[in-house]
Parts: sequence; C-alpha cells; structure tokens
Amino acid sequence: MHVNGKHYRTIWVNGNNKKVIRVIDQRWLPHRFIVEDLHSLDEMITAIREMHVRGAGLIGAAAGYGMYLATLEAPEDNLAGRFMEDAREKLKASRPTAVNLSWAVEIQLQAIKTGKTVQEKISIAYKTAGDIAEMDVDYCKRIGEHGVTIIKELSRQKGGETVNILTHCNAGWLGMVDWGTATAPVYAAIEKGINVHVWVDETRPRNQGASLTAWELKQQGVPHTVIADNAGGHLMQHGMVDMVIVGTDRTTSTGDVANKIGTYLKALAARDNNVPFYVALPSSSIDWQIQDGMKEIPIEEREPDEVRYIEGLCDGEIKRVLLTPEDSRAANYAFDVTPARLVTGLITERGICKPDRQGLLELFPERKL
Amino acid sequence: MHVNGKHYRTIWVNGNNKKVIRVIDQRWLPHRFIVEDLHSLDEMITAIREMHVRGAGLIGAAAGYGMYLATLEAPEDNLAGRFMEDAREKLKASRPTAVNLSWAVEIQLQAIKTGKTVQEKISIAYKTAGDIAEMDVDYCKRIGEHGVTIIKELSRQKGGETVNILTHCNAGWLGMVDWGTATAPVYAAIEKGINVHVWVDETRPRNQGASLTAWELKQQGVPHTVIADNAGGHLMQHGMVDMVIVGTDRTTSTGDVANKIGTYLKALAARDNNVPFYVALPSSSIDWQIQDGMKEIPIEEREPDEVRYIEGLCDGEIKRVLLTPEDSRAANYAFDVTPARLVTGLITERGICKPDRQGLLELFPERKL
Repeated sequence: MHVNGKHYRTIWVNGNNKKVIRVIDQRWLPHRFIVEDLHSLDEMITAIREMHVRGAGLIGAAAGYGMYLATLEAPEDNLAGRFMEDAREKLKASRPTAVNLSWAVEIQLQAIKTGKTVQEKISIAYKTAGDIAEMDVDYCKRIGEHGVTIIKELSRQKGGETVNILTHCNAGWLGMVDWGTATAPVYAAIEKGINVHVWVDETRPRNQGASLTAWELKQQGVPHTVIADNAGGHLMQHGMVDMVIVGTDRTTSTGDVANKIGTYLKALAARDNNVPFYVALPSSSIDWQIQDGMKEIPIEEREPDEVRYIEGLCDGEIKRVLLTPEDSRAANYAFDVTPARLVTGLITERGICKPDRQGLLELFPERKL
Repeated sequence: MHVNGKHYRTIWVNGNNKKVIRVIDQRWLPHRFIVEDLHSLDEMITAIREMHVRGAGLIGAAAGYGMYLATLEAPEDNLAGRFMEDAREKLKASRPTAVNLSWAVEIQLQAIKTGKTVQEKISIAYKTAGDIAEMDVDYCKRIGEHGVTIIKELSRQKGGETVNILTHCNAGWLGMVDWGTATAPVYAAIEKGINVHVWVDETRPRNQGASLTAWELKQQGVPHTVIADNAGGHLMQHGMVDMVIVGTDRTTSTGDVANKIGTYLKALAARDNNVPFYVALPSSSIDWQIQDGMKEIPIEEREPDEVRYIEGLCDGEIKRVLLTPEDSRAANYAFDVTPARLVTGLITERGICKPDRQGLLELFPERKL
C-alpha cells in the first residue's frame, strides 16, 4: 500500500544489501513514520517482542526473515543443527501466542534442512522467507477480491451512494505484509471507484484503530471517521452503518470468532439492527481442532497498565498519561469470542462461506476427516 | 459521601459566610481534589458552563444556588424584576440541554416573587436552594434503599459471595448532591455489609468512569476494577457480571432510556447473557411527553476533539495528548438510546417498576391523564 504516495510493504529486503531486512517500526504510528533496519536474528526478535511489528501475517513473515538472518550467522559446521533450532525456539518465545509465528519458523526449519551446502541453505532460507511473505500478500489480495463483491452489491442497492463500513481494531495491511484482511475489500472497493466510508473504532485499550487503521486509511485516501468504541451501536440504530468487517485471531471449525475485545458487542448491535457482520481471514487462522470458541479459546489477560495509561502526542513528543486514580485496579482482557450465530459470513482467500462446519468444508474440502 | 475520610457533598454553603457557595471542582479529578469558592452569579455560571460541576442533579442544585447568589447582587428597586429574569436566562444558557437546570431556576423565580422585602426575597432564595439540594439527596437515598433490595437478593442467591455490578459513565454522587443514582444501591449495599465489586467502564471519550466513578468508589472503599468499554460483553459471557446498573439523562414514558453513549451495547450484552439490566433515576428525568426514545430524543453531537485527544496525568501535570493522525476526522455522539425491551427495571425514588407506561404510572399515578 502507500505511505506518503510511495508503495510500501510492512517488511522487505533492503535492495542494496540482502543481509538487511527493513520494517516499518509501528510503535511510532500514527505520529511518526520510521523505517527500521534489522541486521540480525536478535534484532528481529526484539522487533517482534517489543511490537515494532505486530499482526498475525506480519509476525509470520518477520519470523520467516528472522530464520533467514539466523542462517547468515550460523557457524558453518553446525548450520542445520543446534544453532537453527535455538533460533526457532527464541523466535517462538518472542510472542508465545502468535500461531503464524510457529508456523513460519517450522516451514523454514524444514526447508533449510534440504540444503546441502551453507550457501544453498542460505539461499533456501531467503527464498522461503520471500515465499511466506508472498503467500500472505496473495491471500490478502484474494480476500479483497471476494469481499469487494459484498460492498459492490451494497453500493448497487444504495444506487451508488456511499457504503458505510464499520471496523474494529487494525486488521489492515499494517498487520499483514500488504492489503490487510478486513481492509482488503475496502481497498479493492476504492480501486474499483466504489464510494466507501469507514467508521474506525478507536479500539481501547491499545487504540489500534485510532492509531493504525486511521493512519493507513488516510495514506490510501480512504474517507474515514474515528469513533469511540461506544458509538457503533448508536450508528447502527440510525442506519449509518451498511456492514461491519473485522479480522480475527482465531476462528473455530464451527465459525466462532476470537478477535480484539469489543468485537462481540459490535456483532450484537449488528444483529439487533440487521446490519451484515463479516469476518475476513486467511485460512491459516482457522483452528480446525476446536468446536466451541467460548469454552476452548483461551483469552489472554494483559498488563492492567494498558487500561490505566495511554500514549499520545503532546508538544511534539509521545507522552504516556495516567487516566485513572493512582491506585484503582484495572483489568485488561485482550480478546473476546463472537459466537457463529452472530456472524453473517467468513471472507477467506477461497471465497465467502457461512460461519459453520459445512460452509468451511465446502471451501476447504481437504479438511474433511 | 467521603473524601479522604471526611464527609462532603458536591455543593454546600460556606459555614462562616453564607454569601459563598463551595463546590468540588471536578475538572481536576481523579488527580487532584480541589474545592472552589463561588462568590457571584457569574462565577456560578462559569462553573456550570466549564463543567467544574456536572451531572443532572448537581447542575440543578448549582442553578438553585446561582439564583440565590443573584438575589445578593440584585439592585433593591428591581429585585424581582428584570435582574432576576436576566439571571434565569443566563443560567439556562450555561448548559442548554440540562433539564434540571431550567427546572431549578423556574422554581427559584416563582419562590422569590413571593417575598415582600429584599431581605425576605434573599431568605426565600437561600431556603429554596437548600430545599432543591435536599430533595436531590432525599431522592438518591431512596433510590439506594429500593435498589439495594435487588443486590441483597443476588447476594442471597450467591450464598453471600461477592455480587459483581457493572456500571457505565458516572451516575455517582459526583453527578448529584450526594449518594448518586446508579451508585446509591451500591453504597447502600456497602452500609449493609453486603460483598459487592463494581466493574467500572472507563466511558470514552470523556472517561467519566475511569476518572470520576473509580475515584468516588475508591474514596468510599468500594472494591472496583476499571475496564475498557470493550470488555463488558466478555465479562458477561463468562458469568463475571451479576447485574448492570446505569443512570439516565432522559427516560421516556414508555421506558426507553437515553444515557451515555455505549449504554445500549451493554444492554444488548446483558440480554444475550441473561444479566439483569437496571436503570436508576429520579422521576425528574422522566420525559412524560414522549413515547419513542429512538425517534424523539435528540442526541447531542459534541466536539470531535474529545475523541481525538485525551487528558491524563504525566510527570505530575495534567496533559492533553493526541491519539489519532493529525488530520483524521472523528465523530462524537454523546448519548445513545436503550430501548425498553432491553431494560429489566427502573429504580426510582418511589420504588422499582417495569420499563413501560403501566409500570411507571403505578408508581406515579398523578401522571395519568
């Protein structure tokens, strides 16, 4: 996508020096756009752990490139051995709950083992990291192509008037390598000249909507309005939302959707006001092993200070301010589960399906037992 | 209620000098506790307009005392005339949508007219202002007495285990003269030794929950936890909320409830999880003229910068930080309407009733046409 009119991905190889991986350091958005050079496995691990990069797809790609950087550092006599296995464990530990991260490092480890010489192993790791990133881009692009058909139909029903889309958190290109998941259909709509406008939930406590989604939509010239997380129900009651699209961290084989805390409340309001509620996801985020999202998906409880404090720009500097009484307790549940009964459809790289086992298996027949 | 162990109301007459009215300047909470002396009608108007004082009941009491301060300033020959009518208009204009404000100034104007001498008019105004404040305290205390019966029953059902109550915004004593509306049953429960714990929605964008409700609960020693507005649905899905109590800015004669933006989302989650959802209100906030809250209650749209910026404590100073991209648009709807079908009951000063015309008329038979 674009930043200040120039094409970017969230992670790429430095054109002049293949030993340097570049990423957008997202900690400074929306206030500063900073590109960071990563020269080693350790620097990549820090970037993942400290959330310079975040989001399912991007963490996977970063882990892939982390394994590639590790091959450059590995001692010759031990390349496929202990050093790379240590690299795998260190990467996995950097964000323990990120499914894509484990997935990417395992792919890399298997691929690297097939190389015979040191140089071959490095080449394979480089190519595999690129493939992981490309697959992410390809899946997101397809999600966009499938999802835009829904927006196109809503636009037709409204006689070409603006289609208002509400989204929660950041399921944008900043969380993937390009395009994003929930945003991919929006960017596809913009390319087709369809009038869209996005209501951006600020998404407390970490404000990924206000800081990341608003920023990336602005950079693509997508009309958007930031709202408090409290506002969506009112907007839906008054016909100001035509559809909701969100991303997901994990979806069960029965269509229950774990996503950023607050998603469930928007799904309830959508149902109460007959607003279609879609979830955009690459199939890698489907957990085929579980059936009941409410009972089987563990919900991460994060640091309470993320609720008690917030960061923002003040006199040109990024400051952290206290919002609550000094000694009031806070709780910080990071995700909630939206039951399948509240979901209109799942938008995947293979098409759109109903949020149930049958719908998913029609798109992914290889998953039938 | 208590502040640092000492009894306070939100507004009172200076004991040594009856010509000075004191208020808690709420702009500095929760970070600083500042009492402000108000010496004139103009100072009271500023305090109301700039939100040193806020909340339905407190604004009414402040307006009553504003009219009293005006009598001290009025020229002798014109006391009941133009000067007092000007005072009325200026007070009404200070927060144009506040119903209690108009109500209090009209009561004062009528009362003052019955005085024959200047001194008599001043005495009447003083007494009437006190009566308005006392009535507020009395109504809130009764709401507490009625509401606590629900908490007591929940406590009994749980065998004395902690009753978890979720509230949104500040419908506490800081918004009234004492006790509050939604908080009154909680304070009554604490007095009776019932184990309660309050989930405090931070209530973006103005964060009245995180700043005011958390502060006043802490001062009374009520166990509480501040949460992002997004979290309530998840808590209810997991049985961590036994009841919801909120306040209201306006309730229709059919039981639709206008309250702080986001209330509707919590009511939907309560219904979806069989959690009782109560609204606490003095009858002065019932609008007997209207039937359809969604269509007939106008929703104030406030300054978008309340969404884009937030205030908090940083290095001992209160700072305002920017949360969104510099030029992203924001929208700021202040209230939403929760339809009566989602409300379990209304807790009024006369008792608890179903949220419909019949229920309200049983408690307020004088309103029958």
